[in-house]
Amino acid sequence: MKIDGIPYRTLWLAKDGVTVEIIDQTRLPHHLQIVSLKTVEDAARAIKDMWVRGAPLIGVTAAYGMALAARADDGDEALKQAAALLMSTRPTAVNLRWGVDHMLALLLPLPAAQRVEAAYKEAARLADEDSDLCESIGSHGAALFADLWKKRQAAGAKRLNILTHCNAGWLATIDWGTALAPVYKAAEQGIPIHVWVDETRPRNQGAALTARELNWAGIPHTVIADNAGGHLMQHGDVDAVIVGTDRTTADGDVCNKIGTYLKALAAHDNGIPFYVGLPGPTIDWTVRDGVKEIPIEERSARELTHIAGKDESGQTITVQLTPDGSPGANPAFDVTPARLVTALITERGVCAASREGLAGLYPERAK
Amino acid sequence: MKIDGIPYRTLWLAKDGVTVEIIDQTRLPHHLQIVSLKTVEDAARAIKDMWVRGAPLIGVTAAYGMALAARADDGDEALKQAAALLMSTRPTAVNLRWGVDHMLALLLPLPAAQRVEAAYKEAARLADEDSDLCESIGSHGAALFADLWKKRQAAGAKRLNILTHCNAGWLATIDWGTALAPVYKAAEQGIPIHVWVDETRPRNQGAALTARELNWAGIPHTVIADNAGGHLMQHGDVDAVIVGTDRTTADGDVCNKIGTYLKALAAHDNGIPFYVGLPGPTIDWTVRDGVKEIPIEERSARELTHIAGKDESGQTITVQLTPDGSPGANPAFDVTPARLVTALITERGVCAASREGLAGLYPERAK
Repeated sequence: MKIDGIPYRTLWLAKDGVTVEIIDQTRLPHHLQIVSLKTVEDAARAIKDMWVRGAPLIGVTAAYGMALAARADDGDEALKQAAALLMSTRPTAVNLRWGVDHMLALLLPLPAAQRVEAAYKEAARLADEDSDLCESIGSHGAALFADLWKKRQAAGAKRLNILTHCNAGWLATIDWGTALAPVYKAAEQGIPIHVWVDETRPRNQGAALTARELNWAGIPHTVIADNAGGHLMQHGDVDAVIVGTDRTTADGDVCNKIGTYLKALAAHDNGIPFYVGLPGPTIDWTVRDGVKEIPIEERSARELTHIAGKDESGQTITVQLTPDGSPGANPAFDVTPARLVTALITERGVCAASREGLAGLYPERAK
Repeated sequence: MKIDGIPYRTLWLAKDGVTVEIIDQTRLPHHLQIVSLKTVEDAARAIKDMWVRGAPLIGVTAAYGMALAARADDGDEALKQAAALLMSTRPTAVNLRWGVDHMLALLLPLPAAQRVEAAYKEAARLADEDSDLCESIGSHGAALFADLWKKRQAAGAKRLNILTHCNAGWLATIDWGTALAPVYKAAEQGIPIHVWVDETRPRNQGAALTARELNWAGIPHTVIADNAGGHLMQHGDVDAVIVGTDRTTADGDVCNKIGTYLKALAAHDNGIPFYVGLPGPTIDWTVRDGVKEIPIEERSARELTHIAGKDESGQTITVQLTPDGSPGANPAFDVTPARLVTALITERGVCAASREGLAGLYPERAK
């Protein structure tokens, strides 16, 4: 996607062909800071300190971390140590573990002299694969938006209003994003799209990252409090909701950022389509009832009681919102039952949020 | 209600019997600042700069403002000028206009020498009347909570979990509050109540004021993001929702702080009672369909894009949350349709959220 007209990914190779460059996402939205990763230690720090975020981007950063490690020392022992270092950064990140294991399995059987080249090649392939997958979600979703826009235009509408929650844009992937990919594709096709951006408390990924992306891309958008979406829907100001997901069950329940369920309820109550953009690999075929079976991560209450922003001098500082002594609770995700989801948009096409719908698109996975 | 064991109202007479004292609510939650109002100009400033907030408190502050004016000059002209000054502070506040008109109508027919005493007496009566009204809401609501607690206790629960949105506590009235009055009454009766406090973006009245009140009163509470309530309800962690209201229609639709509708949807989806505490005077008998008929105030986007909090040195400062150039929208209220409201709790008792329910309690108003 573009920043002020220049195409970017969230991770790319520098001109020297070996240094990996990323955007330090902890500095967003107020500062665009590019960081060079020259060693596996740099890559580990980028993951640990959350300069990169989002499962696909973490996985690809780890893959490039293995390439950087091989450059310094292509021996078996060094590669195994590098893998252990990378895995220790965020022990629960499934994509991270997968990416590192995948690279080790590829590299160790090769002669040492071929490992650096093979590692860079494979890391690049993983990045392209993720980008292609997201672009496909974008194309399938944009077709839905085009249909919606035809109807809205016939009814005299001047723009297509899409509401999104959290950040499932290109900053959370390598490029395109999942929930935002259809927005970018639809905008490319000339659909006059406008996005209502839920600020997404407590971590404000909407106000910070989604607004930042859409702002860079020149796509009209408006940041709203998470509280406002229901009211906008009641008054006909939302044509569709689209969100990403961390995990979708085999029955079509959707686990996503806390608050997603409330927007799905409001969309349902107002007869508005509620779409979920998801890459096939995030379907968890072992789980059926998301509300009962998916454990929800409880994060630090400090994310709620304190907030970071830009002060008058342009510095990012943190302030306390709650009175001393009032505790907070911070569940990070919720589960939207399949009955509230109009359709799932995957890289293979659009399907109903149901066992049958998913089995139709992924027959080899559904048993 | 009590602050660290000492009973307070939001407004009271100082020991000299003439000076009016208030809490500067703009300094909350981090600082408890008492301000003395000695002149009508002081009272006007307190209203204009929102040191006092909430319809009943604004009305009573204006009534005392007229008493302070009469003390300085009890002539007709001076009182009329004082009335005009007070009304100019917040031109759209219905209670303000009502309070000032009421005092003028009372004072002007009296001999000048009797006006000061009469003004103080009437202002005190209005304050007591509001406090009594809120206390009645508390008693009726606490009876509902007691019934709920009996059932929950029988099911093995250790506490009664009540979720509230915004601040409808004593800080928004003279004493007791509307939505929080039943919480205070239930706590007095020994019910082990715990309150989930929606932070209530964008103005954070929950995180700042409701948490502050409950904290002072020693009532267990936990601040949550507005996004979290649906998830808590899905998992059985909420036994009832209670909110206040700015305006209730003759058919029982409830206009309240933005985001209330989303919590009502979630309560309905999970079979949890959704209660509204309201004083009879806030029923608007001229309106039936709240979603269609009530115009919603659109406030400054800066309330969303910027936020104030306490920095490390204890100073309250404001920081920017969104990227430069991303616009925000800030509808301040939404309407919860009567079909989602389990019951209305008024000073006269509990009724269904319907024309028939309200007519049963207020036969003299329903035509």
